[in-house]
Amino acid sequence: MKQFLDENFLLKTGTAQRLFHDYAKDMPVIDYHCHLPPAQIAADTRFENLTQIWLYGDHYKWRAMRTNGVPESYCTGDRSDKEKFMKWAETVPYTLRNPLYHWTHLELQRYFGIKDLLSPDTATDIYEHCSALLQKPDYSVRNLLRRMNVQAVCTTDDPVDSLEHHQSLRDDGFEIPILPAFRPDQAMNVSNVANFNAYIAKLTAVTNIAISSFDDFLYALQNRHDFFASMGCSVSDHGLEEIYADDFTGSEIDAIFNKIHGGKELNDTEQRKFRSAMLIHFAEWDWEKGWVQQFHLGALRNNNTRMMQTLGPDTGWDSIGDFSQGKALAKFLDKLDSNNKLAKTIIYNLNPADNELMATMIGNFNDGSLVGKVQWGSAWWFLDQRDGMTRQINALSNMGLLSRFVGMLTDSRSFLSYPRHEYFRRIVCDLFGDEIENGELPNDTKWVGKIIQDICYHNANNYFHFQQPVVKAAEQKITA
Amino acid sequence: MKQFLDENFLLKTGTAQRLFHDYAKDMPVIDYHCHLPPAQIAADTRFENLTQIWLYGDHYKWRAMRTNGVPESYCTGDRSDKEKFMKWAETVPYTLRNPLYHWTHLELQRYFGIKDLLSPDTATDIYEHCSALLQKPDYSVRNLLRRMNVQAVCTTDDPVDSLEHHQSLRDDGFEIPILPAFRPDQAMNVSNVANFNAYIAKLTAVTNIAISSFDDFLYALQNRHDFFASMGCSVSDHGLEEIYADDFTGSEIDAIFNKIHGGKELNDTEQRKFRSAMLIHFAEWDWEKGWVQQFHLGALRNNNTRMMQTLGPDTGWDSIGDFSQGKALAKFLDKLDSNNKLAKTIIYNLNPADNELMATMIGNFNDGSLVGKVQWGSAWWFLDQRDGMTRQINALSNMGLLSRFVGMLTDSRSFLSYPRHEYFRRIVCDLFGDEIENGELPNDTKWVGKIIQDICYHNANNYFHFQQPVVKAAEQKITA
Amino acid sequence: MKQFLDENFLLKTGTAQRLFHDYAKDMPVIDYHCHLPPAQIAADTRFENLTQIWLYGDHYKWRAMRTNGVPESYCTGDRSDKEKFMKWAETVPYTLRNPLYHWTHLELQRYFGIKDLLSPDTATDIYEHCSALLQKPDYSVRNLLRRMNVQAVCTTDDPVDSLEHHQSLRDDGFEIPILPAFRPDQAMNVSNVANFNAYIAKLTAVTNIAISSFDDFLYALQNRHDFFASMGCSVSDHGLEEIYADDFTGSEIDAIFNKIHGGKELNDTEQRKFRSAMLIHFAEWDWEKGWVQQFHLGALRNNNTRMMQTLGPDTGWDSIGDFSQGKALAKFLDKLDSNNKLAKTIIYNLNPADNELMATMIGNFNDGSLVGKVQWGSAWWFLDQRDGMTRQINALSNMGLLSRFVGMLTDSRSFLSYPRHEYFRRIVCDLFGDEIENGELPNDTKWVGKIIQDICYHNANNYFHFQQPVVKAAEQKITA
Repeated sequence: MKQFLDENFLLKTGTAQRLFHDYAKDMPVIDYHCHLPPAQIAADTRFENLTQIWLYGDHYKWRAMRTNGVPESYCTGDRSDKEKFMKWAETVPYTLRNPLYHWTHLELQRYFGIKDLLSPDTATDIYEHCSALLQKPDYSVRNLLRRMNVQAVCTTDDPVDSLEHHQSLRDDGFEIPILPAFRPDQAMNVSNVANFNAYIAKLTAVTNIAISSFDDFLYALQNRHDFFASMGCSVSDHGLEEIYADDFTGSEIDAIFNKIHGGKELNDTEQRKFRSAMLIHFAEWDWEKGWVQQFHLGALRNNNTRMMQTLGPDTGWDSIGDFSQGKALAKFLDKLDSNNKLAKTIIYNLNPADNELMATMIGNFNDGSLVGKVQWGSAWWFLDQRDGMTRQINALSNMGLLSRFVGMLTDSRSFLSYPRHEYFRRIVCDLFGDEIENGELPNDTKWVGKIIQDICYHNANNYFHFQQPVVKAAEQKITA
Repeated sequence: MKQFLDENFLLKTGTAQRLFHDYAKDMPVIDYHCHLPPAQIAADTRFENLTQIWLYGDHYKWRAMRTNGVPESYCTGDRSDKEKFMKWAETVPYTLRNPLYHWTHLELQRYFGIKDLLSPDTATDIYEHCSALLQKPDYSVRNLLRRMNVQAVCTTDDPVDSLEHHQSLRDDGFEIPILPAFRPDQAMNVSNVANFNAYIAKLTAVTNIAISSFDDFLYALQNRHDFFASMGCSVSDHGLEEIYADDFTGSEIDAIFNKIHGGKELNDTEQRKFRSAMLIHFAEWDWEKGWVQQFHLGALRNNNTRMMQTLGPDTGWDSIGDFSQGKALAKFLDKLDSNNKLAKTIIYNLNPADNELMATMIGNFNDGSLVGKVQWGSAWWFLDQRDGMTRQINALSNMGLLSRFVGMLTDSRSFLSYPRHEYFRRIVCDLFGDEIENGELPNDTKWVGKIIQDICYHNANNYFHFQQPVVKAAEQKITA
Repeated sequence: MKQFLDENFLLKTGTAQRLFHDYAKDMPVIDYHCHLPPAQIAADTRFENLTQIWLYGDHYKWRAMRTNGVPESYCTGDRSDKEKFMKWAETVPYTLRNPLYHWTHLELQRYFGIKDLLSPDTATDIYEHCSALLQKPDYSVRNLLRRMNVQAVCTTDDPVDSLEHHQSLRDDGFEIPILPAFRPDQAMNVSNVANFNAYIAKLTAVTNIAISSFDDFLYALQNRHDFFASMGCSVSDHGLEEIYADDFTGSEIDAIFNKIHGGKELNDTEQRKFRSAMLIHFAEWDWEKGWVQQFHLGALRNNNTRMMQTLGPDTGWDSIGDFSQGKALAKFLDKLDSNNKLAKTIIYNLNPADNELMATMIGNFNDGSLVGKVQWGSAWWFLDQRDGMTRQINALSNMGLLSRFVGMLTDSRSFLSYPRHEYFRRIVCDLFGDEIENGELPNDTKWVGKIIQDICYHNANNYFHFQQPVVKAAEQKITA
């Protein structure tokens, strides 16, 4: 009977244990995609209590609580932090076999040294102990990043974002590069006329570029792309149900832009064409600057209108969709590749039914020009758990080169999520360990250890080569 | 070398064995969805022989026999019961690794105390032994239900069904509630004009309501819904390729009804709108009465026209489809939720490629108002086997709360299928046992045992709270 | 710690080891679908070196090399054979967990007695050792087939192929039947007007039949079908994204043929109708002659236009698609079955998300007329690895009869691929062994051993009953 969550957690074989402890454990973390709030890093925030750092904004926990019959007031509502925490503590014992059970206890152990299980019995002690620690300087968010050996972080930012916090972090000389990522979802979301025109207004405000045509719109966006680059950004990201790769002409897109800018609804065909055009433009800019472009495909978002209206997006009402992914994705990448404008690319799928499609799609555009140029991203969101990671790792192994994988990222809003890298590493080591002990791989710990270190760190480091931007961002407002 | 089908069948670890024997084994069975014939329970039928109780109506066995080259006369045809049994006995050794192999020997052991393997060598003895037992009072269908510790049964009934057998069971005072379930598939099946109008005629006959408009049609159906409720029904069920959630107006549906009622074919759009409308109406009635609504999604039925014409539906010519499920399912549930009319709901998918979609979809509508309000149903039909169950349980664990799962049902036409609950429980215990012994869960047998008992029994009991209706059904024929 | 690739490779239990060594290992191989070049067998080619037999034409290896950053000149380009080999040797250590790692070392061990791991360190020795052996008579391609206990081979041939090499093999009296298979993909590929008309010209040339109508076209193709039959062919094959089963009339197809033959592009509907018609005609011919028809469904091909233009098809730029498969496949098979014209059929899917659909689809048309008449083909292409095979075997077990499965084929262009049969057999034995030792199957090694021998050999032998055609092909050119 193995102890729960001991030092060999998830490591069944001696070989797996050696691989983890000797090779994987101490590698730095490159968190190339997450949703950490730059403002909190800039402020080097310390949280008042465990609820604030752990439950605020964590829709995974809210979903579990709601399924467990916990009223909304304890999730996102007006109950006190302590009351919310107690409801979470009541829910935790019901999350057995859910990744939340592992994350919860791993985070309590790694950050706070707590080995007790969270339950109503232990909740008060844990809450008080952790909340007290959180108020100490050691628990400021910058120190939490340092403690987890984080070497670089990419946040997720809208093109209209000022990036003032990134600037302030640089001015501060914080030694861990906190870099922006360019996520222009709103700039291609033409399903709502008013929202899109409001976005144009924001873009005008931030660039000082008057926008009356599609060319102006593009010019303003590209201006932001340049600005992001000046701020050290070298990564873009897109959250889409599917890739749009409809055919279009420049004059069609001009007309579509004018139509929506003139306040008229676009029909489905027009929306698809516009999105298709934007994806190509963004991709070309990424290629021109040598960025990495990322595509997160397949979420079905905001399914609960009632709760969307109350709480807004990203509050736990999203799920996995079953969109058709193959043809358009191939067409889009091919269009770029045919023009020699395909940037380094990472594709993430939310529906694991698409795993093998993704694992083989990347091979179509890995042409030998670069090691692992097109990547299939790590298990994401709902898949970011043991089964999901294992299936992604296995499909990638079977249909591509696991050895060239850029590996794990947190994709999290929480400063306490970094043990997921450890979790991922344990899973990778366990898979290799099993196969070595079963005679399915040679017993060459040194070589396998090197590959594991590549997956944990070196591959991402070589792929992204993130650097703290050394010069200050150029003044970017353009005077009309 | 473990003995085949011994008391620790499917239970690899000591912990799993303890969990099963100490916690799971003796829990009662709530069979909230099945296809048992109420007439046979009302008659407390005793079967003449093993073929009649075991092979009549079992399309799983027929499919295996046909694949094994057994002519139709031995499956559904005019061969003698003994001859049919011998062909089944010839086939069984070829079903190794198919769930039929496990079901077969589990059922022989549990109901008849037979530990021999069924094969041509043992077939005659087994046939005679079991057939002799079946003629004894202990083997009447009511006693079979008692023997399996069944606490409630929901059959599957068409709105036009008289429910006379349910009434007679109540009059008899049979202590196990045998409750109807409202399955109105025929009432929304508008693909065939003649069949639909014949259905309207039946509805008129049973309600004494003249139907000349959509309002009449709805009124008559609702009358049956009320009648079912009066008979203790609190569950509806729908067997659909996919959810229909097209937009429609009341006047459109009126016109569509008039068109088909007038003998004209509906085009695809009209059919979809009509089905979409019916689903909303049914769902609202279910919500008004506090029923549980069930949706069985994704079967591709009656694929073999030649055999359909000879044998009719449900004779083994169906398979798993690959319908698009996400958007319409979300839209349908959201429409109900937005109007605060979403009843307790269970969704079942036939294609396991949709598992993760389903596991995450339910979370979109679990709003804390009720523990586990929207459920993802247990592995169904072709998936009702070890792999299928395991994958459903694992996906539910990873993306929802397994602890709040209402668990297993038989969905069977056979009185000998109840060991599937045991099978399911063994699988659940084995999964927990493995993880406890591997240190992936804490070694807290008491808490895990409680959760297992919840999954086996208490969750369903709390979710459905079935009760024997105490008053007689009100006279339901309406005098015109 | 088990040794890598020892005699009990992939066989975890003693039972699995006994099943493999006592039952599976020595069964002959029936390779009922592959892409071996008949010309090389006819010439009894000996290869100059390991690169020529192993890397030429192997797009699996090229994809791995490209992902590993190896330039195209070392894959398909003008580098020397030795240089290409060295780049492959550099890549192999990075293929850990990819099937290439297993294939590579299994092939080196089985054909050349090499137990060293291929890496830059060992590359020169291995290259020289193997290249020297390859030049010996024992390593001629016919002797390689004999060494692997191959009993029959079906190649893959276009209807316009002369089959001269098959004829020459027969004239030679080579004792292993090398039989053609009829693969008319080009005859239904109407997406490109010029290509289709060029194909008609070839068909005219080879048949001496003037083609000016659809009837002529069919007549000429049927002439080739007859010719293939006279050459011992009893198998057809189709490589399709999906089955086309649109409704069509004879006059529509006549008109569509005339349109494209007249040099005009077909729209999508016309293309689908034409393909639907051709599939029915081919299927009926197959049924008339008692052939087996095979459908390879779901590849997304030639996704990289730039490389397609440089290298042509089948050079490693294909992937798994997510086409809708269910309804059309059911409709197509049903149409044939309804007319009593459904030939023995094997369906292969490339996307494993369709596994369960396929596993259940075959049951719809297994009507008892023949043991395992409709088969779900073995894991194919990207799925032809341990996970892929295991999932196919498990889904088939759960939803059909594994015992009646026709089993493994190579589907390879390489004379060194036959150890894949051994690999498949090890996996099958391991699965049975595990379940026997766990008490999930009875410990009846003799019966399980018989079933394994059936899956390895007898089922395919009984299903196809391939024979060397004894008479010479009739003169087939028709004088106008």
